[in-house]
Amino acid sequence: MAHCIIAEAEALLDKEIPVLDKGFVRLVDYMGGDARVVQSARVSYGEGTKSYREDAGLIDYLLRNRHTSPFEQVVLTFHVKLPIFVARQWIRHRTARVNEISGRYSVMKDDFYTPECGDIAMQSMDNKQGRGETPEAEAAKAVQESMKNAQKAMYTAYTELIDKGIARELARINLPLSLYTEWYWQIDLHNLFHFLELRLDAHAQKEIRLYADTLFAIAKKAAPLCCAAFERYMLGAVTFSKEEFAELQNRLGKGDGSGLTGKAFERFEEKLRTGRQT
Amino acid sequence: MAHCIIAEAEALLDKEIPVLDKGFVRLVDYMGGDARVVQSARVSYGEGTKSYREDAGLIDYLLRNRHTSPFEQVVLTFHVKLPIFVARQWIRHRTARVNEISGRYSVMKDDFYTPECGDIAMQSMDNKQGRGETPEAEAAKAVQESMKNAQKAMYTAYTELIDKGIARELARINLPLSLYTEWYWQIDLHNLFHFLELRLDAHAQKEIRLYADTLFAIAKKAAPLCCAAFERYMLGAVTFSKEEFAELQNRLGKGDGSGLTGKAFERFEEKLRTGRQT
Amino acid sequence: MAHCIIAEAEALLDKEIPVLDKGFVRLVDYMGGDARVVQSARVSYGEGTKSYREDAGLIDYLLRNRHTSPFEQVVLTFHVKLPIFVARQWIRHRTARVNEISGRYSVMKDDFYTPECGDIAMQSMDNKQGRGETPEAEAAKAVQESMKNAQKAMYTAYTELIDKGIARELARINLPLSLYTEWYWQIDLHNLFHFLELRLDAHAQKEIRLYADTLFAIAKKAAPLCCAAFERYMLGAVTFSKEEFAELQNRLGKGDGSGLTGKAFERFEEKLRTGRQT
Amino acid sequence: MAHCIIAEAEALLDKEIPVLDKGFVRLVDYMGGDARVVQSARVSYGEGTKSYREDAGLIDYLLRNRHTSPFEQVVLTFHVKLPIFVARQWIRHRTARVNEISGRYSVMKDDFYTPECGDIAMQSMDNKQGRGETPEAEAAKAVQESMKNAQKAMYTAYTELIDKGIARELARINLPLSLYTEWYWQIDLHNLFHFLELRLDAHAQKEIRLYADTLFAIAKKAAPLCCAAFERYMLGAVTFSKEEFAELQNRLGKGDGSGLTGKAFERFEEKLRTGRQT
Repeated sequence: MAHCIIAEAEALLDKEIPVLDKGFVRLVDYMGGDARVVQSARVSYGEGTKSYREDAGLIDYLLRNRHTSPFEQVVLTFHVKLPIFVARQWIRHRTARVNEISGRYSVMKDDFYTPECGDIAMQSMDNKQGRGETPEAEAAKAVQESMKNAQKAMYTAYTELIDKGIARELARINLPLSLYTEWYWQIDLHNLFHFLELRLDAHAQKEIRLYADTLFAIAKKAAPLCCAAFERYMLGAVTFSKEEFAELQNRLGKGDGSGLTGKAFERFEEKLRTGRQT
Repeated sequence: MAHCIIAEAEALLDKEIPVLDKGFVRLVDYMGGDARVVQSARVSYGEGTKSYREDAGLIDYLLRNRHTSPFEQVVLTFHVKLPIFVARQWIRHRTARVNEISGRYSVMKDDFYTPECGDIAMQSMDNKQGRGETPEAEAAKAVQESMKNAQKAMYTAYTELIDKGIARELARINLPLSLYTEWYWQIDLHNLFHFLELRLDAHAQKEIRLYADTLFAIAKKAAPLCCAAFERYMLGAVTFSKEEFAELQNRLGKGDGSGLTGKAFERFEEKLRTGRQT
Repeated sequence: MAHCIIAEAEALLDKEIPVLDKGFVRLVDYMGGDARVVQSARVSYGEGTKSYREDAGLIDYLLRNRHTSPFEQVVLTFHVKLPIFVARQWIRHRTARVNEISGRYSVMKDDFYTPECGDIAMQSMDNKQGRGETPEAEAAKAVQESMKNAQKAMYTAYTELIDKGIARELARINLPLSLYTEWYWQIDLHNLFHFLELRLDAHAQKEIRLYADTLFAIAKKAAPLCCAAFERYMLGAVTFSKEEFAELQNRLGKGDGSGLTGKAFERFEEKLRTGRQT
Repeated sequence: MAHCIIAEAEALLDKEIPVLDKGFVRLVDYMGGDARVVQSARVSYGEGTKSYREDAGLIDYLLRNRHTSPFEQVVLTFHVKLPIFVARQWIRHRTARVNEISGRYSVMKDDFYTPECGDIAMQSMDNKQGRGETPEAEAAKAVQESMKNAQKAMYTAYTELIDKGIARELARINLPLSLYTEWYWQIDLHNLFHFLELRLDAHAQKEIRLYADTLFAIAKKAAPLCCAAFERYMLGAVTFSKEEFAELQNRLGKGDGSGLTGKAFERFEEKLRTGRQT
């Protein structure tokens, strides 16, 4: 009843799983698991949980009905190495506990993220925040080269200031957002699901999506039933607005018209086809 | 480097430590310990922590200088049985994760808190929120008896409604604040210290103070160095206001007068004698 | 561009809107409104929001795509009088700022909630947390009477202890959960929406639902466009799980089977008919 | 009783107060003020506040005794333009509500922070996170020039990528931490005090300290009594550890020895002289 020891999670402990060119995610520790969610739900709902004899059924019920607090009883601690521009998106999730390396205390290492040629893309025309088509291979290569050169130049300038004895907190201010940083990041499963819902989404920047993929792969080892319910009821779920639902009922012969028109109608059709909100 | 296994904490796991007449605190699980605080601080401060070779020195330094985030990397999960009026004070600490038994799902048990005769006290005259003198033994006994009778009567009324088939969520609304409830309560060490600072204080209601004592005793097993630093720099520390500090310097021949007068002066004298803020 | 002054909200300021038999909600103050959401979104998304020339369109876009942070820029302060059992459900929302009357400092007033006869109901058989059928009028009346008598008895016992000079913090411990308390409760619009989603739900206890209704009515005055988008995309929305969505596509001739069976299939049919998750 | 309109705060609304070479702080809105703190405290403490007839006395009492919740009832919204390396320190305060400009949606402007020559300093030898001596004027000038040149080069590289049509979310990754960003930042007074305590401290990096100075100057206009109490009991206060307090009592002839030795003793002497924790 005390520690939840989960063999598959144990096997991952202290292993660096590579992400991007120089980053990683490492599971430092975990507390609780599927069994803890069940235990704490049984404290809350007592008799209300009697009918769910099996853990999977109870976990499904909890997530389906948004009884989210039992999922907070599972906690995961990660050590992550990630580019600063990713860290800036990541830190917006305020419900985690973070210890990040400080450029005031330490000399930063010569580690920068450069996208692979295949990841270099043009500005999307229809999606204001995203990537569109891929440039020709040669053009992508040229972009990548110029990025690398700029990173080299900036790191050289940084080390020159450090060598002159300039304060670290000043010397670092021209380091680019592609520089790698590291942190300990601890989060409970409920809040991790919220993070994953946003960061596994197709609209999230590809770089943070790759980290989210890795976090999710690790979470599945630590709490497989919870993660399956998350996929079923959150990640893979599709939400229809009030008007869209009326249209749905209409189509299935159960309603009497919704009045969806124009762009709203197009978004609905797109959602029916792809499951995606646009 | 993964799980911190601390023998003294392991020995406590799943043991109910009695508090008040029918309550308890039980350590369900813990993640991290002194070593985790040190690990995560070394991520943050890197070279900056090299000079503190010993963990105790580094932990002392962190707490003394309010580098609080590494203490968030230690997490404790408790199962607590406590009267509702205590739960209402406790829940004001918003930085914890809670699963409480629900009177909508379950029939509440016949467990009420009645103070021991020695704990029954008169309203304090000078402290608006506290207890003053003790009544005579007979008077205290009478108060206790009348409390017990009222609790019996209220529980009988409750079971009558339940037996009639009235909805649990309605039947319970006349149950008193002295009824025991239970919850899982998970908190990180930094926020536990904040809780303890307020709830171990002489101004806290005695009943919650007894729970705080027990939580602190458990935390000392799980993270002894951190708790020692907490006692040194937070719990046992004394803070002087700007004016009071000027007065202090003055008395020690290092300042030139503070102008503290009247009640503020009396509070200062009291603080010098007792270490307590009034 | 500074204060958002909204005439309809101004008209509500400092008016107590009755809820239940003796409770109320009063709008103390508000900061921001629809215009502030638009302003702060334009800071975040800059050029990205140019195409939404109209505020309503932008607000719709933000909520539809879960860009929730601009909604945090609107803040509402309420003064609420509510029974303690409602307060205990309410306080579980941790993202608000609360000042509640303290029974340690003040003598509590003789104000108790007693349900109207029409609100007294039997335990639901199929819904573990809810109410089912209504008892006969006479039986309901009897329940109500016995509740009132118990409340009177408990308040008499309380005042006797107070009159004897027993400490307020002890005298109050047998007061029932039906006692009214009061608090200042301040919350931002994003978190209010989350509160409303849960507390306007048919599964929420009727008493807190009535407060949620009132909060929502007030919010609609202060931020009408935001509240309309909330109704469209959150409150009135219907979410289908991964499997349910496959079934939907199937029925509409766009997919190839979902494999939904048994209870899951029944829940799906129920959802299609009523829009409700069960 | 509704809106707190404070003339001095009104006068500041929508005025950009310059900070650093190109940054600013602008008060967008505020809710509440000294009067709101008093109102909400009177809800909480009722009779307990009777003896404080004047607001200043009550506010003093609240802060002195860490009754912090009434201070959460005052909320301030700022628009801030600040370098990214400052933003990264700032965002660690999780109890605020933020909308930041996004480099995925907008092309970033050509605004970089370059320290004035007088602010360029060598690494401190004894303080691992801080600045030490000033280099010669010529050397400082050279550092500044090289910083400016690097910023120009990086911005040119950025606009080249943008002009080629490369996705904004990629083009920006080599922009330096000295680039200016902007955000709406909303915080309550209690949490602002915590922010100020840390960021007005001599150990905070000078650049963020200048922003903290400006925030504090604005807060003083909106809630002068609260800010005066903050200066008295928090900002200007001096805290002595358990052992240091014993030493203090000893020196003043009220104790019997503390056993403070070595570095701990030196820190104590330093604190007595300067009021600073080291």
